[in-house]
Amino acid sequence: MILTVTSNIALDRTYVVDRLEAGAVHKVRLAFAQTGGKGVNVSRNVAELGGATVVSGLVGAGGLELAELELRAAGLDCALYEVAGETRQTVTVTASDGTTTAFDEAGPTVTDTEWCSFEEHVRGLLDRASMLVLAGSLPPGAPDEALQHLVAAATDREVAVIVDSRGNAMRAALAAGPLVAKLNRAELSETLGRSFGTDDEVVEGARELRDLGAHNVIVTLGAGGAIGLGSDEIWKVAHPPAAGNPIGAGDAFTAAAAMTLAAGRPFPEALLEGAAAGVASLRSPTAGHVEAADVRAAALQVEIHEYGKATTRA
Amino acid sequence: MILTVTSNIALDRTYVVDRLEAGAVHKVRLAFAQTGGKGVNVSRNVAELGGATVVSGLVGAGGLELAELELRAAGLDCALYEVAGETRQTVTVTASDGTTTAFDEAGPTVTDTEWCSFEEHVRGLLDRASMLVLAGSLPPGAPDEALQHLVAAATDREVAVIVDSRGNAMRAALAAGPLVAKLNRAELSETLGRSFGTDDEVVEGARELRDLGAHNVIVTLGAGGAIGLGSDEIWKVAHPPAAGNPIGAGDAFTAAAAMTLAAGRPFPEALLEGAAAGVASLRSPTAGHVEAADVRAAALQVEIHEYGKATTRA
Repeated sequence: MILTVTSNIALDRTYVVDRLEAGAVHKVRLAFAQTGGKGVNVSRNVAELGGATVVSGLVGAGGLELAELELRAAGLDCALYEVAGETRQTVTVTASDGTTTAFDEAGPTVTDTEWCSFEEHVRGLLDRASMLVLAGSLPPGAPDEALQHLVAAATDREVAVIVDSRGNAMRAALAAGPLVAKLNRAELSETLGRSFGTDDEVVEGARELRDLGAHNVIVTLGAGGAIGLGSDEIWKVAHPPAAGNPIGAGDAFTAAAAMTLAAGRPFPEALLEGAAAGVASLRSPTAGHVEAADVRAAALQVEIHEYGKATTRA
Repeated sequence: MILTVTSNIALDRTYVVDRLEAGAVHKVRLAFAQTGGKGVNVSRNVAELGGATVVSGLVGAGGLELAELELRAAGLDCALYEVAGETRQTVTVTASDGTTTAFDEAGPTVTDTEWCSFEEHVRGLLDRASMLVLAGSLPPGAPDEALQHLVAAATDREVAVIVDSRGNAMRAALAAGPLVAKLNRAELSETLGRSFGTDDEVVEGARELRDLGAHNVIVTLGAGGAIGLGSDEIWKVAHPPAAGNPIGAGDAFTAAAAMTLAAGRPFPEALLEGAAAGVASLRSPTAGHVEAADVRAAALQVEIHEYGKATTRA
């Protein structure tokens, strides 16, 4: 079972309006809400690809019941933990012209006591897990070492960990030696404090993350594919340009990579499956959804080769 | 006690952002939420002006506890009624340049059974009330005669009613003979199906509302003051131009007018007090707040005269 932990779960509301106009009052033509956050998306994808998963995470007051109802209705097993602050919400406004405009709340401020209790809660779930995915930002108030404690708790129990985070929280998490650090180019910048342009620069950044403690590093590059730093080799993944909704593509990558590694298959296969899932997820208008058939079709178009060597078809 | 009924209570969220840009992702710098809706604002104003009030209304699933907590923390007595649909939310985005952009959800769809139970709930509250204020739109699913039933229930018990609504719901409500129909120019248009420009046209519209059953009619005209159609006279209220936040000014007007009438004072006094409260409320950055001292100061600047006759200082 792949356990995902989203430490700042949100209720994602989507509003459909005719046209977004600053200064105007908009009657919302259609509103829908679903439980969101990177780890939640990863679990949705794992379930859609046929894997076993449990959603855990922190949710603000009043949000637990609604989130559990919604996740269970979507067929997901969950073990959420409620804190006193108000539930985080995000609002995404979709206009008829296709523009999407988003407003992201920071989320409830978590006390030290709450975070400690939450760590205990996650430890209790690790016995059933073959893989732990820590994904998304920390809520306000959580200590910088928050993810580090969770990585350490999992590795102590020989549960492999994928961390998808950024900044100080990511740096701290790396010190506990996760199996994989996974981020995109912007998150790599936020973690190492400088920008990364060329693939050579990205490889250099990935090496720094390994020096900080990660066993493997995956940096996704959007249309530019991904770079994977394994224990011995460096891999470059590429795919033909694909249009669609990029929101959630990174989470689909993480989901498929986690499933592949949890099944004991090698790192380059995880990169290939991850990239295929990322491309397939572009077809879904909402984050957190991917069709297994689309992943199989996309996998035929993904190429992987050792970085700096000639391209070979996977 | 002034009982307010808001049949479509909302959780009003306010987001503060640096600049609103269509197509961008905005980190919300500050988010706060309060229970909203016209009747709720009226009760807030009544309480701030020293009156006794109870907030009633329909609230969607999961919203009851939060709304009651928030209203009681604000010192308001409340008796809300929960329905199964999801709580209505509104989001107002305030940018640093002062632009406010709003997104209003329609609210939960109410079943016939739910509405009937809610009517019973309100009937049970009328024994304690000296005045009933019905304010705001109906939720989706509520019958057009919904407000009519509530007006009839109150007048049967000799509780005077002020209705602040529009369209078919307002027309239906008038048939049950409320003490006052109160609306603004846009609501008058929506109720009678044509636009109203000059004061003479507004007076004509007010007469039509009286023909439909209202004993008195108040049409607020923003910076243009208000027109009041009493049982014998027509009144025009004017005040000097005033800047500020116009959202909630109409609710402050209703609150002060309701308090004046509930105290047995004459209709023109209610117009004067209402207009003063409306002007005073412009000073508050959020709807539903007014300072008693500001109302007294504003009252000195409000003039009232019989419509079509020379101005006399009130």
